[in-house]
Amino acid sequence: MTLDEVRASFPVLERVAYLNAGTFGPLARGTVEAMRARHQLDLDLGRAGAWYRDETAALRGDARPRLAALLGVDPANIALTQSTSDGCQIVALGLGLKAHDEIVTTDSEHFGLIGALHASGARVVVTSPSPDVIAAAVGRHTRLLALSAVLWTTGEMLPLRDLKEETGLPVLVDGAQSVGAIEVDAEPFDFYTVSGQKWLCGPDTTGALYVREPEALAVARPSFLSQQSYTPDGAFDPQPGAARFDSGWIPPPSLSGLVAAVDAAPEWRFTRTFEVAERCRQLLAERFDVVTGPEHAGLVAFRPEREPAQVVERLAERGVVVREIPGTGLVRVSCGYWTSDGDLERLLDAL
Amino acid sequence: MTLDEVRASFPVLERVAYLNAGTFGPLARGTVEAMRARHQLDLDLGRAGAWYRDETAALRGDARPRLAALLGVDPANIALTQSTSDGCQIVALGLGLKAHDEIVTTDSEHFGLIGALHASGARVVVTSPSPDVIAAAVGRHTRLLALSAVLWTTGEMLPLRDLKEETGLPVLVDGAQSVGAIEVDAEPFDFYTVSGQKWLCGPDTTGALYVREPEALAVARPSFLSQQSYTPDGAFDPQPGAARFDSGWIPPPSLSGLVAAVDAAPEWRFTRTFEVAERCRQLLAERFDVVTGPEHAGLVAFRPEREPAQVVERLAERGVVVREIPGTGLVRVSCGYWTSDGDLERLLDAL
Repeated sequence: MTLDEVRASFPVLERVAYLNAGTFGPLARGTVEAMRARHQLDLDLGRAGAWYRDETAALRGDARPRLAALLGVDPANIALTQSTSDGCQIVALGLGLKAHDEIVTTDSEHFGLIGALHASGARVVVTSPSPDVIAAAVGRHTRLLALSAVLWTTGEMLPLRDLKEETGLPVLVDGAQSVGAIEVDAEPFDFYTVSGQKWLCGPDTTGALYVREPEALAVARPSFLSQQSYTPDGAFDPQPGAARFDSGWIPPPSLSGLVAAVDAAPEWRFTRTFEVAERCRQLLAERFDVVTGPEHAGLVAFRPEREPAQVVERLAERGVVVREIPGTGLVRVSCGYWTSDGDLERLLDAL
Repeated sequence: MTLDEVRASFPVLERVAYLNAGTFGPLARGTVEAMRARHQLDLDLGRAGAWYRDETAALRGDARPRLAALLGVDPANIALTQSTSDGCQIVALGLGLKAHDEIVTTDSEHFGLIGALHASGARVVVTSPSPDVIAAAVGRHTRLLALSAVLWTTGEMLPLRDLKEETGLPVLVDGAQSVGAIEVDAEPFDFYTVSGQKWLCGPDTTGALYVREPEALAVARPSFLSQQSYTPDGAFDPQPGAARFDSGWIPPPSLSGLVAAVDAAPEWRFTRTFEVAERCRQLLAERFDVVTGPEHAGLVAFRPEREPAQVVERLAERGVVVREIPGTGLVRVSCGYWTSDGDLERLLDAL
């Protein structure tokens, strides 16, 4: 598959330089067609009966190994969720932390992660996103490191393996900006979240959670899909493996769209994403203060001369879709494997 | 709008006697068309930018008052959720219960409710679904009554207002089988869940939660939508009212479909649902042991002579869609405002 062929599958790219996969990836025609075909079945045949049960189970069975492969892990360790926020809640609530327990995180995390950490009731210790400072913040009450693989603000990549080895602590990785943008090996970590709608270009409210030791984490948010059998007081025999953390129903059309989206990505996705983001970084650095370093995924953030919100609006008027990161003075550009040099020229011209 | 016009809007009714709205309602052509139109926008324009933000907010603003109206409450007390299970988790986890606290529920509740009760860590006290027995199970450690308005197993309706008045306790109502099937006044209760995909005939993973005193319930599952502002440790200033419990992103196509579905229901929905369910009850009672009493919503359950699973399969072969209730020996028939006398004849003939 060539870049031109890939680009032709995403209608939005005909209209604008779409550089916002860090929020929502572009949708491919085939992804929406897969959803439509399933909606047609639901409409005509009804969402019930043996065909519906079997096809839904088959779709869940199709999605799980594909998401596992993206993380380099066993499908038995993958829960299907609706978002990274969902995954973070499952972990933060499932650990059963107390008020004297501590979680170490950085000052550059998304609310989807830190909101869940706060709700766990543990003390949230916030550091700058510097490996040494993170390691130094670990104390005898620390029960979890909760960190993004790629910071949503600056695109910076944290050396998570080193931090895991150095601290020996359980690590929850927010993978919203990594899975689909870079090659991921989630295996060394304890928990790793996936967002389906960003770099995987899947439908809204699809995602996954890797759990290395499913038996060691309580099921804090049981769904009907979590159990094999239950008693009238709600106690239950959980599903084997991480399926016990499946957070709830995902519409079959969405599962179908997700599978289509994952299957459509070209083999060269990661090299191209890196190259085009690197080119973006260099082009921007000729004129702006770029905060993203040479180790990066698909995100590139820079400090424009004018108000970021105004810059984003002005770019939108010129057919370039990027976003600002509130409170930071930064504009963030998301470069994916579908991004062309022409998109970058359009960005630079519009700036 | 006549019954024939209503029936013509649901393609599945041309094929089968669809009697399973207690699991998933039939989908109307207009509901799926509304979803398709939104998917087309997402495909062509991209899920980003001012248009996307504004239209999504508008759709959430369209859905909230419609769901509030179905419960007879103020939209400010409605959270948008993805399911009744979602709503039950929000309440059960948000109450901050301890191991010595007790929740009283019945032995006939869905796992979506009791799974959440169990996960709260409180002691779950299970009684038969008899008002006197429920009231007698209340003790000085009881912190919550958690009950269905309409039992999913037998279709029985519990006198929730009386139980609320008699006990004075907070009451969480599982409204999965009531909202859309009968006229509901949620106001006297503390929490009331809504399933969008059942009697409202909405898309999968849509729903709502009524919270009478939003400030009195902790936000146990904060989503990005819960907050107005936050600090790096995840502490946050919540949205006003029940919107703080909005459980996460709902795809705009799903919101659009839900609004279309709610708007399409005829004024006579509740009288027709009652009448056709009553007719079903009487017809079944001529030949079977019907467990649903004269006060009912849309569900009618009966005890067939043969194995329920076999009966359901045999009916499916004859174009009649119903379900069994595992472990009870019951087959459940869901009658909605779209159900015709012909559907009932088909059921009786096939039995």
